[in-house]
Amino acid sequence: MHKVIFDTDPGVDDAMALLFLHRHPEIDLVGVTTTIGNAPIDITTRNALFLAEAWGIEAPIAQGSGEKFDPKRKNGHWPTFIHGDNGLGNIEIPQTISRKADPRSAHQFIIDTVRANPGEITLVAVGRMTNLALVLQADSEVAALVKEVVVMGGAFDVPGNVTPAAEANIFGDPEAADLVFTAPWRVTVVGLDVTMQTVMMRTYLAEMAKAGGKDVQLLNDLSQFYIDFYNHRVGDGMVIHDSCACVYVVRPDLFETRSGAIRVVCGGIADGMTIQKPDAKTFPPGDWDGHPSQFACTGINADAVLGLIRAVLVEGKAA
Amino acid sequence: MHKVIFDTDPGVDDAMALLFLHRHPEIDLVGVTTTIGNAPIDITTRNALFLAEAWGIEAPIAQGSGEKFDPKRKNGHWPTFIHGDNGLGNIEIPQTISRKADPRSAHQFIIDTVRANPGEITLVAVGRMTNLALVLQADSEVAALVKEVVVMGGAFDVPGNVTPAAEANIFGDPEAADLVFTAPWRVTVVGLDVTMQTVMMRTYLAEMAKAGGKDVQLLNDLSQFYIDFYNHRVGDGMVIHDSCACVYVVRPDLFETRSGAIRVVCGGIADGMTIQKPDAKTFPPGDWDGHPSQFACTGINADAVLGLIRAVLVEGKAA
Repeated sequence: MHKVIFDTDPGVDDAMALLFLHRHPEIDLVGVTTTIGNAPIDITTRNALFLAEAWGIEAPIAQGSGEKFDPKRKNGHWPTFIHGDNGLGNIEIPQTISRKADPRSAHQFIIDTVRANPGEITLVAVGRMTNLALVLQADSEVAALVKEVVVMGGAFDVPGNVTPAAEANIFGDPEAADLVFTAPWRVTVVGLDVTMQTVMMRTYLAEMAKAGGKDVQLLNDLSQFYIDFYNHRVGDGMVIHDSCACVYVVRPDLFETRSGAIRVVCGGIADGMTIQKPDAKTFPPGDWDGHPSQFACTGINADAVLGLIRAVLVEGKAA
Repeated sequence: MHKVIFDTDPGVDDAMALLFLHRHPEIDLVGVTTTIGNAPIDITTRNALFLAEAWGIEAPIAQGSGEKFDPKRKNGHWPTFIHGDNGLGNIEIPQTISRKADPRSAHQFIIDTVRANPGEITLVAVGRMTNLALVLQADSEVAALVKEVVVMGGAFDVPGNVTPAAEANIFGDPEAADLVFTAPWRVTVVGLDVTMQTVMMRTYLAEMAKAGGKDVQLLNDLSQFYIDFYNHRVGDGMVIHDSCACVYVVRPDLFETRSGAIRVVCGGIADGMTIQKPDAKTFPPGDWDGHPSQFACTGINADAVLGLIRAVLVEGKAA
């Protein structure tokens, strides 16, 4: 079993990833922490609670920081044109939700849970890296106790999506991401290099909804707005960024990775860009030296990833 | 006929490119300007004069700036481990060279020549972009009178060579390169994406030398030190960076290009990185807006490029 804490900013593609983690038979979802990115923190937390209630997810949900790691950085506009004004494609969300958040902050919840399960927790982070940076800042020993960190974010050999240089999750908190990527834990970065290849067509999701009952139907409903956004870019489907990171946890064999230290540009026109120094290449001494080798995804078996998601969401089994 | 001014820092691969420009039947080499990069300006100028004398190149040779465009930037170390202490692989170079440099500065020579041949001059720049930036600074009208600029430099979808982010020519003078790429002339950038694929094996060059007489033998001699450097990286051959840019002038059909504004990162860990905003992709308003669409090479027919160089250098014909 993979014990997972899911750090998320739901967010439409986050919702699919959450249902995947909940339903995968070899994943034990031990906690959900909320972060900013697709929407502000009150909305992403409300959405996490709503989805947990709707889908019967019992793991604790802890609210994360609503601000960036570097206090000099201000939150900009939220991408309501992608995820809707309510972060879940403008579906109707009840005013009152009975599920309540854990009283701890996200980073304290992560620290407590990792310390209670040393070497066993995988952190899957699919929003900004703020909470993980706060973990590292608050408890410098905890990195060594985490099993693995899997991040959806970044763009290595392909353009970004918010600027030609940068992907949204990393652009949203570059200092936090640079701290996370250079910390002494194992990080795999699932970026646009592979997620942009992983498109679930509208009809494919609709058929899943038909076969999967009301839970998948809810997912289908909340995804329509997002699919409309992506329709102009990738055809009539959705890029399932965050689910790719979740699939990596259980099926790393479906990905190709490249090892090497990863840094994030902070400031200037390349603000938020992820740059890896591939271990296979030699460079003069520089800014990547002395940082741990991490893993950037460079290839994906997209058809197999889509098939696995379908099997897990519709049938609750991993084949 | 293509009228070419060659802005160069010989440099071993520069030497091959110079002989290619001199011998190609459809290229009229109307001038050589020297720049820094592979060696300091007194050495690159001396080497250009030496090669011109040895190979009977009669075009004027004008010395460029020995400093970077931004006076706050200082020259670092020269890559003597690649090009040798004398910039030409440590072959013997006579103390006295009868060829003398044009009295004008490189940028003034370029301005005068372009103004005398409006719309006809192709600038092939294979060192730092310093001289071209000085042209733009000194005469803002001249960009519109240049036929085309072809640059060897940069790295778009691949790592750099002096840092994981940056290629040497652009890293050597980032502010100059950013000015050159955003100026209102047509620029094609032949970067590491394609040049690293274009390796001339030691044996291939040796056979060329055998068939090509003393001029190609000189090229072969001065290339041995450089091949020794590349031997650890690409096998027993040389990456012919600068010749790729020269081939582009006459055979653009051997390259794949991508259009879009190109900026250079100035400062920070990505200092000197080239980043293109592909025209095919949409981004929120940002730092690439309002700049002309330029061309980044993304693919090359390396075998055909090598074959053309061999034909031109050995037989003086373009087939």
